[in-house]
Amino acid sequence: MPKFMDVHTGMHGITPEGLLEAHNADLAIQSEEGVSFEHAWADPESGMVWCISEAPDAAAVQRIHERAGHRADQVFPVPVEA
Amino acid sequence: MPKFMDVHTGMHGITPEGLLEAHNADLAIQSEEGVSFEHAWADPESGMVWCISEAPDAAAVQRIHERAGHRADQVFPVPVEA
Repeated sequence: MPKFMDVHTGMHGITPEGLLEAHNADLAIQSEEGVSFEHAWADPESGMVWCISEAPDAAAVQRIHERAGHRADQVFPVPVEA
Repeated sequence: MPKFMDVHTGMHGITPEGLLEAHNADLAIQSEEGVSFEHAWADPESGMVWCISEAPDAAAVQRIHERAGHRADQVFPVPVEA
Protein backbone atom coordinates (compact mmCIF):
# COMPACT_ATOMS: atom_id res chain seq x y z
CA MET A 1 0.00 0.00 0.00
CA PRO A 2 1.36 3.48 -0.83
CA LYS A 3 2.80 5.60 1.94
CA PHE A 4 2.08 9.28 2.55
CA MET A 5 3.62 12.10 4.57
CA ASP A 6 1.14 14.77 5.51
CA VAL A 7 1.98 18.17 6.92
CA HIS A 8 -0.04 20.38 9.24
CA THR A 9 0.85 23.97 10.11
CA GLY A 10 -0.46 26.32 12.77
CA MET A 11 -0.47 23.74 15.58
CA HIS A 12 1.45 26.04 17.92
CA GLY A 13 1.59 24.87 21.50
CA ILE A 14 0.38 21.36 20.74
CA THR A 15 0.84 19.09 23.77
CA PRO A 16 1.51 15.35 23.94
CA GLU A 17 -2.09 14.91 25.10
CA GLY A 18 -3.40 17.07 22.24
CA LEU A 19 -1.45 15.17 19.62
CA LEU A 20 -2.51 11.82 21.05
CA GLU A 21 -6.14 12.93 21.06
CA ALA A 22 -5.89 14.06 17.42
CA HIS A 23 -4.07 10.87 16.43
CA ASN A 24 -6.64 8.71 18.19
CA ALA A 25 -9.45 10.56 16.39
CA ASP A 26 -7.80 9.52 13.11
CA LEU A 27 -7.31 5.92 14.26
CA ALA A 28 -10.96 5.64 15.29
CA ILE A 29 -12.21 6.14 11.72
CA GLN A 30 -9.22 5.36 9.48
CA SER A 31 -10.44 1.88 8.51
CA GLU A 32 -13.44 3.42 6.76
CA GLU A 33 -11.04 4.75 4.11
CA GLY A 34 -8.48 1.94 4.25
CA VAL A 35 -5.93 4.28 5.87
CA SER A 36 -3.39 3.28 8.51
CA PHE A 37 -1.71 6.14 10.35
CA GLU A 38 1.64 4.95 11.66
CA HIS A 39 3.20 7.84 13.53
CA ALA A 40 2.94 11.58 14.15
CA TRP A 41 5.62 14.10 15.16
CA ALA A 42 5.01 17.65 16.35
CA ASP A 43 6.98 20.82 17.02
CA PRO A 44 4.90 22.99 19.37
CA GLU A 45 7.14 26.02 18.75
CA SER A 46 6.81 26.17 14.95
CA GLY A 47 3.34 24.63 14.96
CA MET A 48 4.36 21.93 12.46
CA VAL A 49 2.97 18.39 12.59
CA TRP A 50 3.90 15.49 10.29
CA CYS A 51 2.03 12.20 9.98
CA ILE A 52 3.17 9.10 8.12
CA SER A 53 0.49 6.74 6.86
CA GLU A 54 -0.34 3.94 4.47
CA ALA A 55 -3.40 4.57 2.34
CA PRO A 56 -5.01 3.86 -1.03
CA ASP A 57 -4.32 7.47 -2.08
CA ALA A 58 -3.67 10.98 -0.73
CA ALA A 59 -7.35 11.91 -0.85
CA ALA A 60 -8.20 9.09 1.57
CA VAL A 61 -5.62 10.43 4.04
CA GLN A 62 -7.11 13.89 3.77
CA ARG A 63 -10.69 12.65 4.17
CA ILE A 64 -9.81 11.00 7.50
CA HIS A 65 -7.96 14.07 8.74
CA GLU A 66 -10.85 16.33 7.69
CA ARG A 67 -13.48 14.17 9.35
CA ALA A 68 -11.34 14.02 12.51
CA GLY A 69 -11.28 17.82 12.54
CA HIS A 70 -7.72 18.59 11.47
CA ARG A 71 -7.32 18.99 7.72
CA ALA A 72 -3.72 18.62 6.53
CA ASP A 73 -2.10 21.51 4.66
CA GLN A 74 -0.40 19.08 2.29
CA VAL A 75 -0.35 15.32 1.68
CA PHE A 76 2.67 13.96 -0.21
CA PRO A 77 3.18 10.45 -1.55
CA VAL A 78 6.50 9.05 -0.30
CA PRO A 79 7.25 6.12 -2.59
CA VAL A 80 10.98 6.30 -1.81
CA GLU A 81 12.40 5.43 1.62
CA ALA A 82 15.75 4.75 3.21
CA MET B 1 18.11 12.31 23.16
CA PRO B 2 16.00 14.92 21.32
CA LYS B 3 14.40 14.03 18.01
CA PHE B 4 14.43 16.16 14.87
CA MET B 5 12.54 16.24 11.59
CA ASP B 6 14.51 17.82 8.79
CA VAL B 7 13.12 18.86 5.44
CA HIS B 8 14.86 19.05 2.06
CA THR B 9 13.34 20.61 -1.05
CA GLY B 10 14.38 20.49 -4.69
CA MET B 11 15.16 16.76 -4.74
CA HIS B 12 13.01 16.19 -7.83
CA GLY B 13 13.44 12.79 -9.42
CA ILE B 14 15.26 11.28 -6.46
CA THR B 15 15.52 7.49 -6.85
CA PRO B 16 15.64 4.77 -4.20
CA GLU B 17 19.34 4.35 -4.99
CA GLY B 18 19.95 8.10 -4.72
CA LEU B 19 18.19 8.37 -1.39
CA LEU B 20 20.03 5.35 -0.03
CA GLU B 21 23.35 6.78 -1.14
CA ALA B 22 22.58 10.12 0.54
CA HIS B 23 21.35 8.39 3.69
CA ASN B 24 24.45 6.20 3.82
CA ALA B 25 26.65 9.29 3.46
CA ASP B 26 24.96 10.64 6.61
CA LEU B 27 25.30 7.34 8.47
CA ALA B 28 29.00 7.14 7.65
CA ILE B 29 29.81 10.31 9.63
CA GLN B 30 26.86 10.81 11.99
CA SER B 31 28.66 9.46 15.07
CA GLU B 32 31.12 12.35 14.88
CA GLU B 33 28.30 14.67 15.95
CA GLY B 34 26.35 12.21 18.10
CA VAL B 35 23.56 12.06 15.52
CA SER B 36 21.50 8.99 14.67
CA PHE B 37 19.44 9.19 11.48
CA GLU B 38 16.53 6.80 11.75
CA HIS B 39 14.61 7.03 8.50
CA ALA B 40 14.15 9.09 5.35
CA TRP B 41 11.13 9.48 3.08
CA ALA B 42 11.09 11.08 -0.37
CA ASP B 43 8.60 12.29 -2.94
CA PRO B 44 10.40 12.44 -6.31
CA GLU B 45 7.56 14.43 -7.88
CA SER B 46 7.52 17.36 -5.44
CA GLY B 47 11.22 17.02 -4.62
CA MET B 48 10.54 16.86 -0.86
CA VAL B 49 12.61 14.70 1.47
CA TRP B 50 12.10 14.27 5.22
CA CYS B 51 14.54 12.70 7.68
CA ILE B 52 13.90 11.78 11.30
CA SER B 53 16.88 11.67 13.63
CA GLU B 54 18.03 11.73 17.22
CA ALA B 55 20.71 14.30 17.95
CA PRO B 56 22.12 16.61 20.63
CA ASP B 57 20.63 19.61 18.79
CA ALA B 58 19.41 20.81 15.39
CA ALA B 59 22.81 22.25 14.47
CA ALA B 60 24.42 18.82 14.78
CA VAL B 61 21.85 17.39 12.34
CA GLN B 62 22.59 20.17 9.89
CA ARG B 63 26.36 19.77 10.19
CA ILE B 64 26.12 16.11 9.21
CA HIS B 65 23.81 16.86 6.28
CA GLU B 66 26.08 19.68 5.11
CA ARG B 67 29.22 17.58 5.31
CA ALA B 68 27.44 14.77 3.44
CA GLY B 69 26.63 17.23 0.67
CA HIS B 70 22.91 17.80 1.17
CA ARG B 71 22.10 20.70 3.48
CA ALA B 72 18.56 20.60 4.86
CA ASP B 73 16.24 23.52 4.20
CA GLN B 74 14.86 23.29 7.72
CA VAL B 75 15.51 21.26 10.87
CA PHE B 76 12.69 21.12 13.41
CA PRO B 77 12.76 19.68 16.92
CA VAL B 78 9.92 17.19 17.37
CA PRO B 79 9.57 16.76 21.14
CA VAL B 80 5.96 15.56 20.79
CA GLU B 81 5.06 12.22 19.19
CA ALA B 82 2.05 9.93 18.90
